[in-house]
Amino acid sequence: MITSAGTFTIENFALQCGAVLPQAKLVYQTYGQLNRDRSNVILYPTSYGATHLDIEWLIRPNGILDPTRWFIIIPNMFGNGLSSSPSNCQNCGLAEQGFWFSHGDNVFAQEKLLREVFGIEKLAMVYGWSMGAQQAYHWGALFKDKVERIVALCGTARTTDHNRIFLESLRLALTGDRAWTGTHFEGIPERGFRTFARIYASWAASQVFYREGIYYQLGYESLEDYLQRGWEAGYRKRDPHNLLAMIDTWLRCDVSNNSIYQGDYHRALSSIQAKTLVMPSTTDLYFTSEDCEAEANLIPNAEFFAIPSIWGHRAGNPYQNSGDQAFIRQVVHKLLDT
Amino acid sequence: MITSAGTFTIENFALQCGAVLPQAKLVYQTYGQLNRDRSNVILYPTSYGATHLDIEWLIRPNGILDPTRWFIIIPNMFGNGLSSSPSNCQNCGLAEQGFWFSHGDNVFAQEKLLREVFGIEKLAMVYGWSMGAQQAYHWGALFKDKVERIVALCGTARTTDHNRIFLESLRLALTGDRAWTGTHFEGIPERGFRTFARIYASWAASQVFYREGIYYQLGYESLEDYLQRGWEAGYRKRDPHNLLAMIDTWLRCDVSNNSIYQGDYHRALSSIQAKTLVMPSTTDLYFTSEDCEAEANLIPNAEFFAIPSIWGHRAGNPYQNSGDQAFIRQVVHKLLDT
Repeated sequence: MITSAGTFTIENFALQCGAVLPQAKLVYQTYGQLNRDRSNVILYPTSYGATHLDIEWLIRPNGILDPTRWFIIIPNMFGNGLSSSPSNCQNCGLAEQGFWFSHGDNVFAQEKLLREVFGIEKLAMVYGWSMGAQQAYHWGALFKDKVERIVALCGTARTTDHNRIFLESLRLALTGDRAWTGTHFEGIPERGFRTFARIYASWAASQVFYREGIYYQLGYESLEDYLQRGWEAGYRKRDPHNLLAMIDTWLRCDVSNNSIYQGDYHRALSSIQAKTLVMPSTTDLYFTSEDCEAEANLIPNAEFFAIPSIWGHRAGNPYQNSGDQAFIRQVVHKLLDT
Repeated sequence: MITSAGTFTIENFALQCGAVLPQAKLVYQTYGQLNRDRSNVILYPTSYGATHLDIEWLIRPNGILDPTRWFIIIPNMFGNGLSSSPSNCQNCGLAEQGFWFSHGDNVFAQEKLLREVFGIEKLAMVYGWSMGAQQAYHWGALFKDKVERIVALCGTARTTDHNRIFLESLRLALTGDRAWTGTHFEGIPERGFRTFARIYASWAASQVFYREGIYYQLGYESLEDYLQRGWEAGYRKRDPHNLLAMIDTWLRCDVSNNSIYQGDYHRALSSIQAKTLVMPSTTDLYFTSEDCEAEANLIPNAEFFAIPSIWGHRAGNPYQNSGDQAFIRQVVHKLLDT
């Protein structure tokens, strides 16, 4: 498989929060080859806490995203530690400083990258899970002429109030740690990470997932082993400032909060022209099937395909989960054939 | 309505954790009059973070529990701040010190109170919500000849793994605060309370409850107002050590973890002779309807009546919630008439 990596720099990038980054960096990775008429492009934005390395597993010959046919680009979301983020950018900050990245910022930067570096004016598909789905909806509404298909897995175009409470509890778990000074961390928020990981683990897999002890099948020895190695260890690899920054983006996710739609959520969703697959998981506890279906009903060319899964939110990123993988693959390939 | 209050003291009370309390205190409140043959007794144990003052609202003429017909006793759970608790008892502690109250401890003390103070050998009903339901199941299994009816609302006889993660996140939210020394709090865990309340609020009401903005109907001005006044303010009235102690009890809830059943959960549930109503809420996120139904199937005389509600876990304590109140009242009155 042909891959390439790059960093796209935007000078004086004006963010929605009002800040201007002298040099915004967008780190991306591509897979496969762009065809002559540039008609085989799939954009695959990253999800919470992830970089392209965490989500590229599903790009493989005959996989959900097939690089022998498609040219796939993963743009790293602002705040994820590779693209501009509190950990690597002096001019970046957190909500405490009135600074945040919006998904508008993400997709405007991505569009500029595609156009200026690759000459791409049209996307065959935007495929995203969770915060990736949020970006996919923003693409559909903000660049409605440029997106032919959307697959939005386990995500909504606007953050719900219930989801907001979960996010605030996560944010407070980290900023409640003694390493937090009120503006930043000095040292590692040891207990903050512990609490954070457990809150996340309780929400992101379903009750049935735990009832059936699926983590034993994945090689964990106990519930505590799963919580530590399967969750906490992963978050500890991240800079905690970045974990906060991505929550700040998620909390403010609203496809209509921009100059184009000016808060008219219904108009934003009804403007999406892409053929859109709305694919929640039947057991997702924060991007519920009901919330996703309500959005599907507002998008003209949407089809609603809930993933029948006990993996909760993680059904939409079905690593180590062949059943959900097969379901998603089939539905996505059918969409790509139209 | 005739009420009376009392404190029952047990000398040298040996707890399941191995500790012995020189003077265990059980604070109780009664409502109504005990009839001559002592056949009209309803026991109504307390739930998490609650005292009898918080749960007595449903005791009123023609209410769910009617004190003109029944003699109702609310025993305050150990750890709740009225009965023996870390806040009022030098010999009490927390899991950090190898100390905890089990529900076995609660119901053994309650049984002794009923027998020695009131001469009560039989309960017409044990009615409990949440941790109260846990105690009701313990009554049914540990004193199977003494309990004629059980109403177990939104609770399980054994804590599930999924529930455990939620509880651990709550516990870590408090003990992650800088006021925690490793063994106790010095000062108020300000940020701990904030995180704790938001974790609790996200789990205890349902996604639909928030989607429909029910808190506005209850007089709150915003989501943040609801989280602060409706949740955080209530927990801040409690001693945080007691909040941990009650989690320690909940984490260890297992109707079969005692010398009688020696871990045989199926045998413990199948030993319950009481006519039992298993009443989860259809939208409870931690005592799920499925978990409750599985337990109902193991109890010989159980009937399963899920409360069709959007109030999540709180459907089972339907203060300010007339729909669920009417549903529960009807089912309970029918049970009491048999």
